[in-house]
Amino acid sequence: MVTRHKAYIGIDLGGTSLLVAVVGPEGEILGEVKRKTKPELGAASVIERMVQAVHKAIARSGLKYRAIGGVGVGVPGPVQPKEGLVVHCPNLGPSWNHLALEKRLSKHLQLPVTIDNDVNVGAVGEHTYGAGRGSEHMLAIFVGTGIGGGLIVDGKLYTGARYSAGEVGHMPLMAGGPVCSCGRQGHAEALASRSAMEREIRAALDGGRSSIVPDLMARQKRSDMSSAILGDAYDARDSVTVEVVEKAQYYLGLLVAACVNLLDPQIVVIGGGVLERMGDAYLEPVRNVAIEHYINSEQADQVRVVRASLGDYSGALGAAVLARQRLA
Amino acid sequence: MVTRHKAYIGIDLGGTSLLVAVVGPEGEILGEVKRKTKPELGAASVIERMVQAVHKAIARSGLKYRAIGGVGVGVPGPVQPKEGLVVHCPNLGPSWNHLALEKRLSKHLQLPVTIDNDVNVGAVGEHTYGAGRGSEHMLAIFVGTGIGGGLIVDGKLYTGARYSAGEVGHMPLMAGGPVCSCGRQGHAEALASRSAMEREIRAALDGGRSSIVPDLMARQKRSDMSSAILGDAYDARDSVTVEVVEKAQYYLGLLVAACVNLLDPQIVVIGGGVLERMGDAYLEPVRNVAIEHYINSEQADQVRVVRASLGDYSGALGAAVLARQRLA
Repeated sequence: MVTRHKAYIGIDLGGTSLLVAVVGPEGEILGEVKRKTKPELGAASVIERMVQAVHKAIARSGLKYRAIGGVGVGVPGPVQPKEGLVVHCPNLGPSWNHLALEKRLSKHLQLPVTIDNDVNVGAVGEHTYGAGRGSEHMLAIFVGTGIGGGLIVDGKLYTGARYSAGEVGHMPLMAGGPVCSCGRQGHAEALASRSAMEREIRAALDGGRSSIVPDLMARQKRSDMSSAILGDAYDARDSVTVEVVEKAQYYLGLLVAACVNLLDPQIVVIGGGVLERMGDAYLEPVRNVAIEHYINSEQADQVRVVRASLGDYSGALGAAVLARQRLA
Repeated sequence: MVTRHKAYIGIDLGGTSLLVAVVGPEGEILGEVKRKTKPELGAASVIERMVQAVHKAIARSGLKYRAIGGVGVGVPGPVQPKEGLVVHCPNLGPSWNHLALEKRLSKHLQLPVTIDNDVNVGAVGEHTYGAGRGSEHMLAIFVGTGIGGGLIVDGKLYTGARYSAGEVGHMPLMAGGPVCSCGRQGHAEALASRSAMEREIRAALDGGRSSIVPDLMARQKRSDMSSAILGDAYDARDSVTVEVVEKAQYYLGLLVAACVNLLDPQIVVIGGGVLERMGDAYLEPVRNVAIEHYINSEQADQVRVVRASLGDYSGALGAAVLARQRLA
């Protein structure tokens, strides 16, 4: 009974920054610390930075160390949660390959630790405390540089037979279409991600069309097109950007329809950098394309397609939820 | 304890014929009757024919009526199993719209009845007694005039929030592609079903190409291209048919990949008229395309893509399994 009242720590480990939250039994954030990940320093240093951040977050929460039940970590890459192993993290570097993160962190923190994939913890966060609250069957899609997804089936995270369910970014939507980050053609990620939009805008520029995007990039001293830049160009009705965004929305709608026709969830929660910047308005055309393709006409009224509501906190909150479920 | 040893009756109700099987506790078929459905006579007559077939099958099994625990029916269209209602059956006619089949059959037979969709019962049959035996997460895809699917999650039939999960035939695979039976473009059914192949062969013939298919149709006095005709033309290496079959195999491979990347099952069981006729060889190219698109490279070795093993019996056996699960 005591563990039920304990707080759990959720860590959202990203390529740029890491967020540590001390989370109470009702999902309340009792203390938090955000800091740069600095992956160039290697895994040992990043783990050290995570440990320091956890100590600081606990101090900020005002809780005693013994009031903490355990730690959950969302990792940006495939993991083997039962073994506590990171498989690899493209954004963090090769020192993370086959890393025994659970054991390493647990030793440093003297607390039980569980790890999972960042998209899975985000889905769990949105299901437990966010836009998917109360649903039995939910799909989360996160749209950023890539496209990831997480599934909730019968109220629980569903991970498949090899812990690799939810790879919505790699569902083929356009046979023979553009090349995906994974090397295959026509996957959702190659059609509806931020990178897909960037590729299309560059192609338009190479084709001689004019756009304010290069100016925005120069002003912000960036060599890539962030979600913020795409959002600014879209808001300014830059014609190339508007066309490209509308295409991406169309393909995201097809992806939602493919998943709904296969899984028939109550709700599809869509989050990630692109959605954070573009807001609810981004979803309207996505929803319309999806509805157009639903095979069961009742789904048009009944499947909710909504924006994630926890923003940057879905990962840390979801990691804390998994820690509570697995370690209590 | 007594009900566990009872036999259950499974009925596979198709547009052309209906199959009734008396099924023992280990899946043994103790008696069976196959007869024409004659949907043109209307629902009342078809129900009458089902009742007669059940009586005959029980007689053939040598069992006493009281040894029968109940009846399961697989219906060719969407159903509401909890209410025992058929929503509609395009192949059986309008007299089946919103039909209280469970109640009607139960009254005639004086036995408890449960109904489900034909594809779902086929998936349950293959999972319990066929190619998917022993798997925890399974996907069944049936390729015929259309393409249907059934999902097994955590060892049980998964039906989603509105009882319409598994509509693999209506997953978009080719944005802007050919028009599907449902009216939308680019769905799997419009690319990989028998009807899709028929459409492509007709287009080639209209374009002036020569093929043995019209001859085969004339000889068999058919106005459509059955799986048997497609199979004969393929075996004869008719060049139009070979091209069209290879395209359909490619799209079926993409469909398998889309489902595997989303669901990560242990096994994908593929059945239906086209597979029955074309045999295991049909699956080799399907498997290769799918593997090419799996995002988790382990899946290439570990996801089994196999042919359904129960043939015409998957539906009746699955219906009996559902009857045992729901009515015992």
